[in-house]
Amino acid sequence: MARVEVVVVIKSEILDPQGKAILGALGRTGHPGFAQVRQGKHFDLEVDDSVTDAELEEIASTLLANPVIEEWQIRRLPDAAPSA
Amino acid sequence: MARVEVVVVIKSEILDPQGKAILGALGRTGHPGFAQVRQGKHFDLEVDDSVTDAELEEIASTLLANPVIEEWQIRRLPDAAPSA
Repeated sequence: MARVEVVVVIKSEILDPQGKAILGALGRTGHPGFAQVRQGKHFDLEVDDSVTDAELEEIASTLLANPVIEEWQIRRLPDAAPSA
Repeated sequence: MARVEVVVVIKSEILDPQGKAILGALGRTGHPGFAQVRQGKHFDLEVDDSVTDAELEEIASTLLANPVIEEWQIRRLPDAAPSA
């Protein structure tokens, strides 16, 4: 068993209304030190050692992300319990 | 300016129906090598150097996450352009 993290974010050239809303809220609540916020999705996967990088790539591009508007990063993590 | 990544995940003792749905879809589409999937949120922040870790912690616990059911990690990233 291995742990894999997949981060899916909206492509930088595409508007991110959720991030914009958070940035607006930060300004209104006394946090002026923020220039940009972009929101994405995070997936924590527990995978067999038999799962290849190619299979992870296929899953990310078909099940986890929408390749038209999103891009993703796949990171294999050291096999430890998730930290708090 | 610095880049900060905040990852928000549902606490491990709380059911994650989105993750369960993805795990089911993986099984049905010929990917049996997955034992668990948990979905969370990912935030990419561009912050002033004046923003302290305490301020980031406050923002994470009030604006980005729901502390009743979620936990989060704050990671300061090397100051580089986001990779594809």
